[in-house]
Amino acid sequence: MEISKLTEDVKKDSFKMASLSIESRNAALACISEALKAGANTLFAANNRDFADAEKNGIAGPLLKRLRFDQYKLDEVISGIDSLIGLPDPLFNVLLARQLDAGLVLNKVTCPIGVIGVIFESRPDALVQIATLCLKSGNCCILKGGSEAANTNRALFEIISKAAFLAGVPQGFITLLETRSDIDELLKCDKTIDLLIPRGSNAFVQYIMAHSRIPVMGHADGICHVYVDETADRTMATKIILDSKVQYVAACNTLETLLVHQKAAEGLLPVLKARLDEAHVQIKGCPRTQAVIACTPALPEDFDTEYLDYILSIKIVDGLSEAITHINTHGSHHTDSIISKDPRAVELFMLLVDSAGVYHNCSTRFADGYRYGFGAEVGISTGKLHARGPVGLDGLVTYKYKLFGEGQIVADYASGQKSFHFKDL
Amino acid sequence: MEISKLTEDVKKDSFKMASLSIESRNAALACISEALKAGANTLFAANNRDFADAEKNGIAGPLLKRLRFDQYKLDEVISGIDSLIGLPDPLFNVLLARQLDAGLVLNKVTCPIGVIGVIFESRPDALVQIATLCLKSGNCCILKGGSEAANTNRALFEIISKAAFLAGVPQGFITLLETRSDIDELLKCDKTIDLLIPRGSNAFVQYIMAHSRIPVMGHADGICHVYVDETADRTMATKIILDSKVQYVAACNTLETLLVHQKAAEGLLPVLKARLDEAHVQIKGCPRTQAVIACTPALPEDFDTEYLDYILSIKIVDGLSEAITHINTHGSHHTDSIISKDPRAVELFMLLVDSAGVYHNCSTRFADGYRYGFGAEVGISTGKLHARGPVGLDGLVTYKYKLFGEGQIVADYASGQKSFHFKDL
Repeated sequence: MEISKLTEDVKKDSFKMASLSIESRNAALACISEALKAGANTLFAANNRDFADAEKNGIAGPLLKRLRFDQYKLDEVISGIDSLIGLPDPLFNVLLARQLDAGLVLNKVTCPIGVIGVIFESRPDALVQIATLCLKSGNCCILKGGSEAANTNRALFEIISKAAFLAGVPQGFITLLETRSDIDELLKCDKTIDLLIPRGSNAFVQYIMAHSRIPVMGHADGICHVYVDETADRTMATKIILDSKVQYVAACNTLETLLVHQKAAEGLLPVLKARLDEAHVQIKGCPRTQAVIACTPALPEDFDTEYLDYILSIKIVDGLSEAITHINTHGSHHTDSIISKDPRAVELFMLLVDSAGVYHNCSTRFADGYRYGFGAEVGISTGKLHARGPVGLDGLVTYKYKLFGEGQIVADYASGQKSFHFKDL
Repeated sequence: MEISKLTEDVKKDSFKMASLSIESRNAALACISEALKAGANTLFAANNRDFADAEKNGIAGPLLKRLRFDQYKLDEVISGIDSLIGLPDPLFNVLLARQLDAGLVLNKVTCPIGVIGVIFESRPDALVQIATLCLKSGNCCILKGGSEAANTNRALFEIISKAAFLAGVPQGFITLLETRSDIDELLKCDKTIDLLIPRGSNAFVQYIMAHSRIPVMGHADGICHVYVDETADRTMATKIILDSKVQYVAACNTLETLLVHQKAAEGLLPVLKARLDEAHVQIKGCPRTQAVIACTPALPEDFDTEYLDYILSIKIVDGLSEAITHINTHGSHHTDSIISKDPRAVELFMLLVDSAGVYHNCSTRFADGYRYGFGAEVGISTGKLHARGPVGLDGLVTYKYKLFGEGQIVADYASGQKSFHFKDL
């Protein structure tokens, strides 16, 4: 079927999705959970085929690891679905209830976004997380996963869509696209798709944004900073910097640039360098850093680079103000952390750094839906409109204003015959 | 000064704006209110020059009326500022406070969007409303008004910017652009401008969206519907349809298409036609409508047209389901109303119509920030991400996640040495 026709059908079903009760949505999630358990052998067999192909094609170690869908991953996604069932309903929440005048009542009520297109990388468990978050929030999802995981994704899709349909969820709830050319068709469907969530490389996200009029949620870059203030505890700083840089080097919330207060540099950097050397992290330093420790000179563009690798840029700054300006100018508004014992410096950093996550005395790696207690996430948003940071259920709903009257017309208010009597209920 | 350089300076000041206390922001609003009172004669003189030019250029009656800035309008904007001062602070609100583990606390806190570009039509009082809404919400605004109101806008800008600066607000809070070519330069500044709000014709809004990567908030179309259900009270329906259509014919929340249940048509349409004739409203009817009353035949494209004129499309539908499908397919997701006495029909309409405003038994003309009790609005959004419907203070803020730790690193949680203990505070 043509993609444009297909998305029109999904759009029609999205209105049915919007009216499913929380009981129906939770029951469908429970059915999906059961069906995944029952389909374990089918899933593992499909994943083994993907894995064998990937090995044959010489795909590298970390990517192979992400591709694996085994009993451990299955248990993880099932426990994720079970906790999702336990979360409160994100729909039908009354955000505002106001009487405008006698008999004229305004409600602001949460409702699904509609049809969400998600393009995700090789990790097949992401398909389950995204689909179940969309179901709980009453959205339809159109998914395109990485081609390396094609067999696993198809097996997951078949189990989930069948279980959901048997539980009374409209067919249009979940659609799987399988070719790259489908993506280009999808990008044109701005009348039927409400939101795109691309999860992939910076270049890929930029491509999506440049080729579609559909709103995009996500992040193109993850240039995260740690700023070590004059008053920072050195041991704590070293521990947090190491974790932020090497706990998982390819993540978007990984540290790329370390900023150090000039008075903290001599105490911190030599010890830190020893630890970074052990972890095989290459240091690119500004001229002042080079005067304290041996390192590669940092080029200006290094401070605008997301390495996703065992490389760290280091810059010594005069103080808090320079650090904040550097982060707001060179950062990507993702997640930035201050290590400090000075409450005033912490307050200013948390207030003035213009990022979705601003941290005090902890690792940038905490920027994650699971670690925020959201259960799971469909992505992390560095945009400022609507959802910011890890996007869980709350980020998958919007609201509508419902106005209930008894025949009121505006002319009576415009003429002064009647006047508004606002009263929050 | 070049626009790109200018917006960089504004961006720098936006971080200062984000840290102004509510006392400073309210004090600055009070200074602006006083300065406008004191500057009345300057303002009226400037407006008289615009008015004289407009008359000379043969500008039409309704536009002339919107251009007028007299004692009545001044009193209105000043009373608007006074009520804005009384509204609660939209900033620094804690939307979520959660302990993730001992000593690791996550806060989700509202903060300004940053730099907002607003391009607005001839009504000079809009400048005051937008500027003061931005000030209260800690945002910087870059404004471009209609050229017909150039003298009035400049006089308002000078009074407001001087008063705000004297009250300690950063210079970058308000900027006035005066030429059309400045707009094209502004559209390129996607690194410094966080949001564009174009208020103008559909063609103009489409132009902005096609020529900028900056997120746009607002609406391109306002194709609003009234659906008269089988059970509707005829007198109430007629009154609401008239108000929705002619109370102010050029507004975006004006009725463009009337949908009538087949069983309500014969009782309603002849009476309604008499009233519409009196109001000089031309009717374009579907074939079934033409069988009941004399009218011009409606072409298919009429149901996708925002007339902003004394013209009404009428379609007879089989029932609720066809009405909802018609609205979701041909509407612009702005504001749609059902006239009905059947609670089940009302519930389904309010649930399934995918619009920012869904109304029961009242006029579509209520879609307005003032009428919702928001004090004022910067515009009405038909987008679903972030703000929907009339956009007041709440729509001018976003949030950031603040995470406060005591040295926590992710490796301890990833290894299982520590585990999360989520607890909402």
